[in-house]
Amino acid sequence: MADERIWTAALLVIGDEILSGRTQDRNVAQVGTWLNLQGIRLAEVRMIPDEIGKIAAAVNALRRAHDYLFTTGGIGPTHDDITVDAIAVALGVPVIVHPKARAILEGYYRERGGLTEARLRMARVPEGAELIENRPSGAPGIRCGNIFILAGVPHIAGLMLEALAGQLEGGRPLLSRAIGCWAAESEVADLLGETEHAHPDCQIGSYPFFREGRVGANFVIRSTEEGALEACASDLLARLQSAGLDVVSGEI
Amino acid sequence: MADERIWTAALLVIGDEILSGRTQDRNVAQVGTWLNLQGIRLAEVRMIPDEIGKIAAAVNALRRAHDYLFTTGGIGPTHDDITVDAIAVALGVPVIVHPKARAILEGYYRERGGLTEARLRMARVPEGAELIENRPSGAPGIRCGNIFILAGVPHIAGLMLEALAGQLEGGRPLLSRAIGCWAAESEVADLLGETEHAHPDCQIGSYPFFREGRVGANFVIRSTEEGALEACASDLLARLQSAGLDVVSGEI
Repeated sequence: MADERIWTAALLVIGDEILSGRTQDRNVAQVGTWLNLQGIRLAEVRMIPDEIGKIAAAVNALRRAHDYLFTTGGIGPTHDDITVDAIAVALGVPVIVHPKARAILEGYYRERGGLTEARLRMARVPEGAELIENRPSGAPGIRCGNIFILAGVPHIAGLMLEALAGQLEGGRPLLSRAIGCWAAESEVADLLGETEHAHPDCQIGSYPFFREGRVGANFVIRSTEEGALEACASDLLARLQSAGLDVVSGEI
Repeated sequence: MADERIWTAALLVIGDEILSGRTQDRNVAQVGTWLNLQGIRLAEVRMIPDEIGKIAAAVNALRRAHDYLFTTGGIGPTHDDITVDAIAVALGVPVIVHPKARAILEGYYRERGGLTEARLRMARVPEGAELIENRPSGAPGIRCGNIFILAGVPHIAGLMLEALAGQLEGGRPLLSRAIGCWAAESEVADLLGETEHAHPDCQIGSYPFFREGRVGANFVIRSTEEGALEACASDLLARLQSAGLDVVSGEI
């Protein structure tokens, strides 16, 4: 199974506020977790400022290098929301007002002061795009071929991901199993490397922590093969126990 | 002042656990905030998996495109810690054991079971590198020319940044001022755009939120010019008040 196709995605996080440190990004973890469930691997993330040329260049690099490209941020009604314009530049198509998006926004703002010019910006899409549903806040996400344009606000991006669940072609989900150990990872480094080497369909990551005044580490085994994953986890658990370490099945 | 030199940095976040969604990154916000204080702008972030070829390619792209490159992750003692090897590949130099790093680790592990082969991995550096101090956990960070190799664990990365504070050449710090407003950003989009246009040395970002059952937005003005920043903030505050909106000086 080692030669089965791996579907990959990139995520482009757009926004000065992420790079300045003002806003803590939450979309990388959210999109990465969601993609695993779709059998798609998040293979690369880039974070860039609100500049059309930089967005367009990154979009063209990433949409060609991966099966899917997701973007977050820059699709609101204000002057710094330029993601749609930048993606249209990248694709070499004009920006149009999507009739269905316009109708959705007209309905949403009917009781909220009407559809102003600024609000109508949220109905603009690169020509040829489809919409991604977003019931709660009106403004939809946008799909252009293999590009999925999501909101920056994490809970709205999450609703757009929910609307897309099960619709993207992917492979088998990446499975994982954690083993926790109250030991410095430097004590078990050789043991970990040998275990990974003995299970070629699995990768083992080691994530150290300091907690309750003690050092420890979680070892996370990943594989698309349920059987291989279980065998590797059992082997690692046994090796750690044989070494006399304080170990638990599951994350500490 | 619009043509003054802007110093830029990139950050490369290395680690499967970030992309899989298992671990929430905290280093982007931390490094971005710290760089602002040094007068350096975080201009780009990439997040990539633990693969030597991908790390080396990203390192070479980013170190050439920016004044500084920071990396986080992959400098521990286990088999998946390959950042030093990858950066040595990128620079075309061998990996050596740094004598001072070895001495630091020998001291640190004297009472902790001794310096094993795995622990000695943390003294490996690309040839020609200097160390970045890290008193609490022993293993130092590494500087190779304009590349700064930091730990992945955020509080250790933070201590390494503290050790570097004031040592990097930069420009004037980017200043910011926030104005909060209990209004949907779509109501004030035109006003914001006009205000930014009237203050060419400033950028205004708009960050909407939903809180206490109400919609609102924080507007963040950024500039390297204290005077320009204050003038723009006063102007924006006045314009929002004239529009009859519920506005506060400072973030909501």
